[in-house]
Amino acid sequence: MILIDCKKISENKIESIKNEIAEIESKTGLKPCLATILVGENPASAAYINAKIKKCAQAGIQSLHYKLAEDAKKEEIVSLIETLNASNEIDAVLLQLPLPKKEFEEDCINAINPLKDADGLCPYNAGLLSLAKNYKNLLDKNIPIPCTPLGIIHILKESGAEISGKNAVIIGRSNLVGKPLALLLLLNDASVICVHSKTKNLKEICKSADILIAAIGRPNFINKDYIKDGSIVIDVGINRIDGKITGDIDFEDMKNLDIKLTPVPGGVGVMTTTMLLENTLRLFKQNRLNKKSAGG
Amino acid sequence: MILIDCKKISENKIESIKNEIAEIESKTGLKPCLATILVGENPASAAYINAKIKKCAQAGIQSLHYKLAEDAKKEEIVSLIETLNASNEIDAVLLQLPLPKKEFEEDCINAINPLKDADGLCPYNAGLLSLAKNYKNLLDKNIPIPCTPLGIIHILKESGAEISGKNAVIIGRSNLVGKPLALLLLLNDASVICVHSKTKNLKEICKSADILIAAIGRPNFINKDYIKDGSIVIDVGINRIDGKITGDIDFEDMKNLDIKLTPVPGGVGVMTTTMLLENTLRLFKQNRLNKKSAGG
Repeated sequence: MILIDCKKISENKIESIKNEIAEIESKTGLKPCLATILVGENPASAAYINAKIKKCAQAGIQSLHYKLAEDAKKEEIVSLIETLNASNEIDAVLLQLPLPKKEFEEDCINAINPLKDADGLCPYNAGLLSLAKNYKNLLDKNIPIPCTPLGIIHILKESGAEISGKNAVIIGRSNLVGKPLALLLLLNDASVICVHSKTKNLKEICKSADILIAAIGRPNFINKDYIKDGSIVIDVGINRIDGKITGDIDFEDMKNLDIKLTPVPGGVGVMTTTMLLENTLRLFKQNRLNKKSAGG
Repeated sequence: MILIDCKKISENKIESIKNEIAEIESKTGLKPCLATILVGENPASAAYINAKIKKCAQAGIQSLHYKLAEDAKKEEIVSLIETLNASNEIDAVLLQLPLPKKEFEEDCINAINPLKDADGLCPYNAGLLSLAKNYKNLLDKNIPIPCTPLGIIHILKESGAEISGKNAVIIGRSNLVGKPLALLLLLNDASVICVHSKTKNLKEICKSADILIAAIGRPNFINKDYIKDGSIVIDVGINRIDGKITGDIDFEDMKNLDIKLTPVPGGVGVMTTTMLLENTLRLFKQNRLNKKSAGG
């Protein structure tokens, strides 16, 4: 087993974003700004937000943090989002999920202006991803793309994996990971196989994967019986057991296999926060730079 | 081989739409109205539009037809769409594709108000499909859904095929068929496999399909070597050879197999136009009935 060095890939990406921002700032005096919103006191969410703010600083992205109370009404959250939508200084708005009241999430996400949608979760942006004609076209348009799947594509490319023509099996079909990742892998010419809790021959299908992505949310679910020799395995799982974070892949069981594997922690999660910088930069370019040069 | 009687399935669907419309009309005095736009003189497009208008009449849907010249400018098409968007009498707008100038298509489709998007092709509606939490939720919301994939799901359900847990292989990844169909099949709990021209082991993957959908656009491409016994095979191909229409499935080669198959012509194509009525009815309910009862 070879561990994929996601921290290194992430650092390189931050460095390249930082250089691009520095260059733009030296020419225009402008730099991107991300607004983050945390509702309530969930410690995991607070930790994610802190990590994101820290990375912004590292890359030269300004960040503004907004905190609402655990019992904030939907109208308060939406009203804050609308204020941020209207600000000319803010390029991207991130609403940290999950909200204390899960039933608020859809309306709150839909309140974010698609041109400031840092996570690429608004219907309009999800539609642009679904309708994209090819990967280059998608990137050229500076559309925000859900951070976890975007980070996974980046890991695959940076670790030298061939995607075109390969069998990519995705376990899990969420809006945050499975579905947008399927679309991104299709745009990169993989044969894409989406499996989930209702799939009957899961082991057999996983074993056919050249690229296996586990986004199940069940600790150590995937053992060596699911793995093909020579494959690349991406572990999206972040499961907390007795205060320790573990993935969906049974790490110990992988050690003697001829595979490339992303670690947990320090794998996909690291790339997810880094890709938030990428989305912020994209939206900054779309909102402020293209406007300057092309009038809109 | 058993041929699936798509004409019968389509007639039943039209009958049920007709009854629903008659009931709504008797209560409210309102009936749905579809506006169709044909640009240029493409005889196949003109024939499709005529078939659609005829079916509307059959179901009690009013239709208004607009014709623009072959050399119509993009601004003329967009301007007509905006007029139709603004009309309170029109529930759904259908722009017949392909346009004589293919490069106009994206902007013209994007000009259609998502609330009047008869084909479900606008980014916002594509996003709602991509983000739908389950199939019932999608249907309840009266979101328009691309007609061909919606028709295929209807064929599968009406012909008694089990979808949940089955391997569904889709050949082709277009925005009109492959991608929205993958999302619809996932919502119906199939394991979904998307293959295409870059797939290396196409025959082997197709042979694993409980449900095989061919949307390739190459006449008679799929012969019996691609087919599993007991499977259900959906032929989306409409290829014209010497004035004769033929599908992507080699029909003669299927005759002795233990499969269910949709014919071409008289198969998926028939359901596609029928599902336009379904979308028009959905948009009518969303725009005019829900507005009346729920204030928007």
